[in-house]
Amino acid sequence: MTITTPTDAQSEKRRIEAAKDPASSVRLIVSGEDRPGIVAAVSTLLHEAGANIITLDQYSTDPEGGRFYQRTVFHLDGFSAKRPDFERLLDERLVKGLGLTWELRPVAQLKRVAIFASKSDHCLLDLLWRHRRGELPMTVTMVISNHPDLAEDVRQFGIPYFYVPVDKSDRSAAERRHLELLKGNVDLVVLARYMQIITGDFLREVEVPVINIHHSFLPAFIGAGPYAKAKERGVKLIGATAHYVTEDLDEGPIIEQDVVRVSHSDAAADLQRRGADVERQVLARAVEWHCEDRVLRNDNSTIIFH
Amino acid sequence: MTITTPTDAQSEKRRIEAAKDPASSVRLIVSGEDRPGIVAAVSTLLHEAGANIITLDQYSTDPEGGRFYQRTVFHLDGFSAKRPDFERLLDERLVKGLGLTWELRPVAQLKRVAIFASKSDHCLLDLLWRHRRGELPMTVTMVISNHPDLAEDVRQFGIPYFYVPVDKSDRSAAERRHLELLKGNVDLVVLARYMQIITGDFLREVEVPVINIHHSFLPAFIGAGPYAKAKERGVKLIGATAHYVTEDLDEGPIIEQDVVRVSHSDAAADLQRRGADVERQVLARAVEWHCEDRVLRNDNSTIIFH
Amino acid sequence: MTITTPTDAQSEKRRIEAAKDPASSVRLIVSGEDRPGIVAAVSTLLHEAGANIITLDQYSTDPEGGRFYQRTVFHLDGFSAKRPDFERLLDERLVKGLGLTWELRPVAQLKRVAIFASKSDHCLLDLLWRHRRGELPMTVTMVISNHPDLAEDVRQFGIPYFYVPVDKSDRSAAERRHLELLKGNVDLVVLARYMQIITGDFLREVEVPVINIHHSFLPAFIGAGPYAKAKERGVKLIGATAHYVTEDLDEGPIIEQDVVRVSHSDAAADLQRRGADVERQVLARAVEWHCEDRVLRNDNSTIIFH
Amino acid sequence: MTITTPTDAQSEKRRIEAAKDPASSVRLIVSGEDRPGIVAAVSTLLHEAGANIITLDQYSTDPEGGRFYQRTVFHLDGFSAKRPDFERLLDERLVKGLGLTWELRPVAQLKRVAIFASKSDHCLLDLLWRHRRGELPMTVTMVISNHPDLAEDVRQFGIPYFYVPVDKSDRSAAERRHLELLKGNVDLVVLARYMQIITGDFLREVEVPVINIHHSFLPAFIGAGPYAKAKERGVKLIGATAHYVTEDLDEGPIIEQDVVRVSHSDAAADLQRRGADVERQVLARAVEWHCEDRVLRNDNSTIIFH
Repeated sequence: MTITTPTDAQSEKRRIEAAKDPASSVRLIVSGEDRPGIVAAVSTLLHEAGANIITLDQYSTDPEGGRFYQRTVFHLDGFSAKRPDFERLLDERLVKGLGLTWELRPVAQLKRVAIFASKSDHCLLDLLWRHRRGELPMTVTMVISNHPDLAEDVRQFGIPYFYVPVDKSDRSAAERRHLELLKGNVDLVVLARYMQIITGDFLREVEVPVINIHHSFLPAFIGAGPYAKAKERGVKLIGATAHYVTEDLDEGPIIEQDVVRVSHSDAAADLQRRGADVERQVLARAVEWHCEDRVLRNDNSTIIFH
Repeated sequence: MTITTPTDAQSEKRRIEAAKDPASSVRLIVSGEDRPGIVAAVSTLLHEAGANIITLDQYSTDPEGGRFYQRTVFHLDGFSAKRPDFERLLDERLVKGLGLTWELRPVAQLKRVAIFASKSDHCLLDLLWRHRRGELPMTVTMVISNHPDLAEDVRQFGIPYFYVPVDKSDRSAAERRHLELLKGNVDLVVLARYMQIITGDFLREVEVPVINIHHSFLPAFIGAGPYAKAKERGVKLIGATAHYVTEDLDEGPIIEQDVVRVSHSDAAADLQRRGADVERQVLARAVEWHCEDRVLRNDNSTIIFH
Repeated sequence: MTITTPTDAQSEKRRIEAAKDPASSVRLIVSGEDRPGIVAAVSTLLHEAGANIITLDQYSTDPEGGRFYQRTVFHLDGFSAKRPDFERLLDERLVKGLGLTWELRPVAQLKRVAIFASKSDHCLLDLLWRHRRGELPMTVTMVISNHPDLAEDVRQFGIPYFYVPVDKSDRSAAERRHLELLKGNVDLVVLARYMQIITGDFLREVEVPVINIHHSFLPAFIGAGPYAKAKERGVKLIGATAHYVTEDLDEGPIIEQDVVRVSHSDAAADLQRRGADVERQVLARAVEWHCEDRVLRNDNSTIIFH
Repeated sequence: MTITTPTDAQSEKRRIEAAKDPASSVRLIVSGEDRPGIVAAVSTLLHEAGANIITLDQYSTDPEGGRFYQRTVFHLDGFSAKRPDFERLLDERLVKGLGLTWELRPVAQLKRVAIFASKSDHCLLDLLWRHRRGELPMTVTMVISNHPDLAEDVRQFGIPYFYVPVDKSDRSAAERRHLELLKGNVDLVVLARYMQIITGDFLREVEVPVINIHHSFLPAFIGAGPYAKAKERGVKLIGATAHYVTEDLDEGPIIEQDVVRVSHSDAAADLQRRGADVERQVLARAVEWHCEDRVLRNDNSTIIFH
């Protein structure tokens, strides 16, 4: 028996890249009320269909009466042709049999992303740049901004830039324009320091997840001028939180967070600059994980399968 | 359908604690050459036996010809009585059917641990203290030291302390005494800053894993006086590595590592003190994970299922 | 010219330890409205007095009209005998000449500390244990608790334990007892997870600084059950804040903060356990820095000279 | 007496920006054998000259016979006109009087930097991008590469790109070309993943500091394929070190280091990608600190005044 040495060990990403037919790599997300036998049912189904499991992660909030989540990445040669039969099998065994829901997401079908920005470029450019380096599995279909300032930077990447001014007293015209641009064209909206309120109406109509990045402190400093308030109490750590946007402003499920150490010799403006550096890293990780279907929402929290 | 809210979500540890019959919580470790159908076989087997999966993690170094590792924690009412039948099933389906190996580790059967120390108390006392607080699922059966200094501290915890002096020119007498004390009494040896060489003979005869904690730097400073050498080059981070001991001194599979930031105003003695603080944290995590069977060895590396 | 190699470089702590006459090592804290010439005045004064500067840190919130802070550690042979003359010099040059205030704190005169605790032992025992290891330059004069539970653990360290029950409807009796025990006997009160309200009356009468340790999140979760609330939103980092206690509960100047990463597989109880590990580290650092006079208060923030 | 509130507290950077005459902000670096009275001499000299101290940091490897380092940033109105007199004063008081050496570095006189790169763009583009955002106080005078690949990316920033192929059997032609381009035009060379050997001859002739960025592990994995070797031992942290280049390859004084956590599910290629993310952050910090004269070399180590 020859055992592959760990040097050859390949991560999910590398294995998918190595596949001869990229269209044959698929992510299967299963969720629902937990009950005995789910893992057995899913893995038996995949085995019978001839699929090869690359990675499998599952989590249950409580095996007795809790909620079950599973993410499986598999290879199945000729998946496109076999898909209808495969979906019938999922319906029969998982939906009818076990009351679960499922989603199939071929890895080659990249999520289409619109990025919203205002005047700050640090989060926007970091996403575009990481995308160009091949670090983010997505297609950036457009950048939308309420300011014209960043148009040239964005267009250098070959990405369309739409300038949509916002009237703060009546956001409806701008939102109609946003929806015209987005509908049918995106699977995800990323707010990369977009400094405008997102209304509940917009969220309901856009019908795709919206990720936001937000400065964070321990403890929180509510309202305007948070960096100045943080400075006033002598905070030693400042951070950033990436989360899904819900109607409760800045209260949606958290995807990722991180912090950086600061000191009394940093002015409020320095805190802000250091905060910007954390923001772009945290947002890039959240977008990467979302685009790889690693983030599952569970009420107002998230399950993240690394 | 009532969905348990995430507040009620319980970790593996909490779920095991909540079980009415603690003896019914079991960890199953499966490993071997990867091939299609393993996850289906294991989960179907558990389902048929009436077991309830609490957590399941699997990893394959390569789905085609690589090595497969799975850790499953499950509840099975009346496990003790059903164990013989269950083991027969594992042999039949996993060993004969798929060429795998398995181990069953009832959660209630705590690992018996011997801690070796010399004169430094920081790692030793931190382990004893965390153990007393209920943070480490193990039984400390003895402390062995080549110095008498720490006897009183250890005995206050109600743990036997054996003073075994070591003759550096001939370690065999001390090792014979060590083996007399250990054989049959321990499942793990932890070197908590034990400043004596561990010979290949001892490792072969003791027949249980040995975990060591070691200072670490980026880059490494080999040989005597590493803190002074690190200071001479102005290192900014110092760290610690917990690893399994193999005959290649300090070259065994790494379990956990961490670092702490230092500056030019720290003298070599301060680096050492800060290093000590990282050492005790890193060692405590490595011991906790080992005792929960979360660390699987793969040649000279480790798979860690958090 | 022989240059000492960096290996010999000694930190403030090591230099003080190396002094033949420990009573000759002194910390001088100077503060006041910033104006040109302060650093020159202080350093010239020290030079004329024959003192040898070990470390010197200064910070000004704004060189024009801001507030100035300086911490100098120096050696002066025979300091005790020379102290009256030295103080006269400080009054003349710094108070009369420049409108500043000063404090002299001989390093050998350890701060006397009372620790308050309730039922949780993690912060209390970590302080006592680090103190015993020589890591904290202080004298622990007493432990006060509203519960009898930890008496034996504390008395093993040779430290008196006073059990003072608290009547929540009228705290005045307990506070009178606290003040009787503390007055004249302590320079610092440390609340090591003391779960009782500290009143403004107590703070005014105790007349020494009070340090508290508090769980912290990004963002904050206000009120009861913060770990459950954090879990509900899927937080990825939990932390702790050590701060001086002011009448604004948990709103005083921050001394130190830190965080630890958590995941969806941690239950609220696990978050709490991990939080406890951060709490004890953050509190130990805050107490160490305070006892070395490294923490200067500036309104509701702190200047920390590392 | 009005005390400026901490909100108004400004960092060194902000204070310099706020000065009416930027040419009047100057950094003074003083070093030499430590002896009593240095701080007094420097601060008195500055006070007499009418300078206003913005920040002052000093460090001595040992007050008795050690080496002394001081960095002072000050404002002096009309500095350019007063410079000759000021330099005379420094010579008289510090050189003749105390045997020290000094350097004056006007803040407005940005360091001129040449960046060397090969095919990897992550460190190079991060520097150019941070520079464009105003985060790095330097002038990028040129980029030199042994490959033509990155020319277009660099020229978009308006920076000249020189393609200088290297003959590995005889580096002298390439080095002559490098020196022709560099001599008189740069104050610093940054190797941003430049994958060619730097010879001792080049270092001696270029006469400016050279900063390199290097992957780092705990412990080190020497030689080719370090990521594969790290993967084989199951490392949990990978890092990067920025250091000054000396003739001892990769053994020069360390400026900055950092690490990132990895797991068994990362392939060697993933470790490399995560390493790249740390490299660019560490290099950016090292370049920023060097350009602000915060990094003082002390034999083979560094003093860093944050």
